[in-house]
Amino acid sequence: MARILSGIQPSGSLHIGNYLAMMKPMIALQEENELFCFIVNYHALTSLSDPDKLRKNTVDAVLDFLALGLDPEKSYFWIQSDLPEVQELTWILSCNTSLGLLERSHSYKDKVAKGITPNSGLYTYPILMAADILLFQAEKVPVGKDQKQHLEITRDIASSFNANFGETFTLPDAVIEENLAVIPGIDGQKMSKSYDNTICMFEDEKKMRKRIMKIKTDSLGIEEPKNPDTCTIFALYKLFASTEDIASLRATYQAGGMGYGDAKQLLFEQIRDYFKPFREKREQLASDTEYVHKIMKMGAEKTRERAVQTLSLVRKKVGLNYL
Amino acid sequence: MARILSGIQPSGSLHIGNYLAMMKPMIALQEENELFCFIVNYHALTSLSDPDKLRKNTVDAVLDFLALGLDPEKSYFWIQSDLPEVQELTWILSCNTSLGLLERSHSYKDKVAKGITPNSGLYTYPILMAADILLFQAEKVPVGKDQKQHLEITRDIASSFNANFGETFTLPDAVIEENLAVIPGIDGQKMSKSYDNTICMFEDEKKMRKRIMKIKTDSLGIEEPKNPDTCTIFALYKLFASTEDIASLRATYQAGGMGYGDAKQLLFEQIRDYFKPFREKREQLASDTEYVHKIMKMGAEKTRERAVQTLSLVRKKVGLNYL
Repeated sequence: MARILSGIQPSGSLHIGNYLAMMKPMIALQEENELFCFIVNYHALTSLSDPDKLRKNTVDAVLDFLALGLDPEKSYFWIQSDLPEVQELTWILSCNTSLGLLERSHSYKDKVAKGITPNSGLYTYPILMAADILLFQAEKVPVGKDQKQHLEITRDIASSFNANFGETFTLPDAVIEENLAVIPGIDGQKMSKSYDNTICMFEDEKKMRKRIMKIKTDSLGIEEPKNPDTCTIFALYKLFASTEDIASLRATYQAGGMGYGDAKQLLFEQIRDYFKPFREKREQLASDTEYVHKIMKMGAEKTRERAVQTLSLVRKKVGLNYL
Repeated sequence: MARILSGIQPSGSLHIGNYLAMMKPMIALQEENELFCFIVNYHALTSLSDPDKLRKNTVDAVLDFLALGLDPEKSYFWIQSDLPEVQELTWILSCNTSLGLLERSHSYKDKVAKGITPNSGLYTYPILMAADILLFQAEKVPVGKDQKQHLEITRDIASSFNANFGETFTLPDAVIEENLAVIPGIDGQKMSKSYDNTICMFEDEKKMRKRIMKIKTDSLGIEEPKNPDTCTIFALYKLFASTEDIASLRATYQAGGMGYGDAKQLLFEQIRDYFKPFREKREQLASDTEYVHKIMKMGAEKTRERAVQTLSLVRKKVGLNYL
């Protein structure tokens, strides 16, 4: 039982790589922990100035998580901009964050090196991230390796605030999953939006099938025996099929007599069937935006109660409560 | 009739130099304009980490302005941190502010040159100032010459936002009073807290008299005629006395027979009498913190209605309204 916080980038259609590596394990956390999970649309503003795209991506992320089983009753689930209180904490922390700390951020330096014109939001992003975390006194924050330094910045900001104003913030620990299984994309490389090799679980089924049919294989003929352990189709199949189905397909590979087209069809059916109940739930939610809106407003209200506790303490510590 | 905005630093006891140069003319503006006037305690955090001092200074500034005639019915009068909404706009603007713009700030460079360790709040201060102004679509902002560049930064941020997202913000004009009378302090230099030469109008009367008795003069004897136009006592007397009293004291100076001690006593009485009704009102307010609290909460509520109009427009423009 821990207080765990995770922010989700509203970066467009999530794919089965995201699902297996991030969404599924995160949603599982809600059973035994206090889970704070939110869509970081304020962060998205640092690099996105297309309002329609931001709106669509935000709603898509909400629908994806709700459909996949994130339970707003068990968890705290909200959209970052429905809780603008975080920005007040951001300001207070920014008055306690030395510029030196920000200048050391690798992620910022990388973006500038890539030729992105830096705006102030991109530069001070680690402070907003610190506020996101400290506002809820989170104990554990699952992060990718690239975010590890930002969590150290959060700890530095929290320590320095605690030293100046007395014990206020919990110092969060990064939880870095070192042994993440690499999910291959349709070209055999790691599945990633930036390689354009993804399979999106909520895409139209015909398109998804077409995509799966494009998986790269070797050029062995139908009759020849095949090696399941070097085949991308089989690697993906294993992630969704039952033990029996996996054993059976392995035997068929080794016996020969099956073309890759048939294996792809089997994979498609597994993925389709695996996500069928989620897809139905997602379609149902997508058709009732008012209901979704209500859920998200309730999520923000529930979360606000927690945010206000920290904020009211912090305001006292720094002297913003004037009477 | 214009929409005018002015932020007040909660920097401790205000003196008669502040009163004549800033407070009195500002309060007069409420008669013919829509005046937005607020105590900038978020800004104060960039350089103050003493919560008790910040609380005291904030309340002192409130009491000073209310006592001197700022009318919360006619004006919008609030404490910055009672309207945390401004921080959301600050973030949105910061994602539309290039770092180059901040790096050009003279005020920031001056502070760093003076050896202040820069925190992120100090660095991004012009964005909070821009948010303060743009949140209310202010048309005119009275500023000292040292703040002129910050107002240009506000205009740059607003123009660039308008260009990216469509007409949203009014571009504010700086109102710079070039011909401000210089109010002399007790050493004859410009009255300023940093020269420790101030006369504070709400100080204990005995202390105020003692302070006035320290005004530097030349060393002419009692019987000798004196030059009113080179005398600090007379310069201050002119600011508060009636035309008749001024003419009479001028004659006495020129005739000789009066020592500077007597002139100081006359000055003390003028200042004491001028501020008597204000002092009484201030004491009355200071004894009823609940009432003051209520006034300030009402001020914030009234102002919030205006803030929300701009924020809701801005959220739509950038895509934070997701449904």
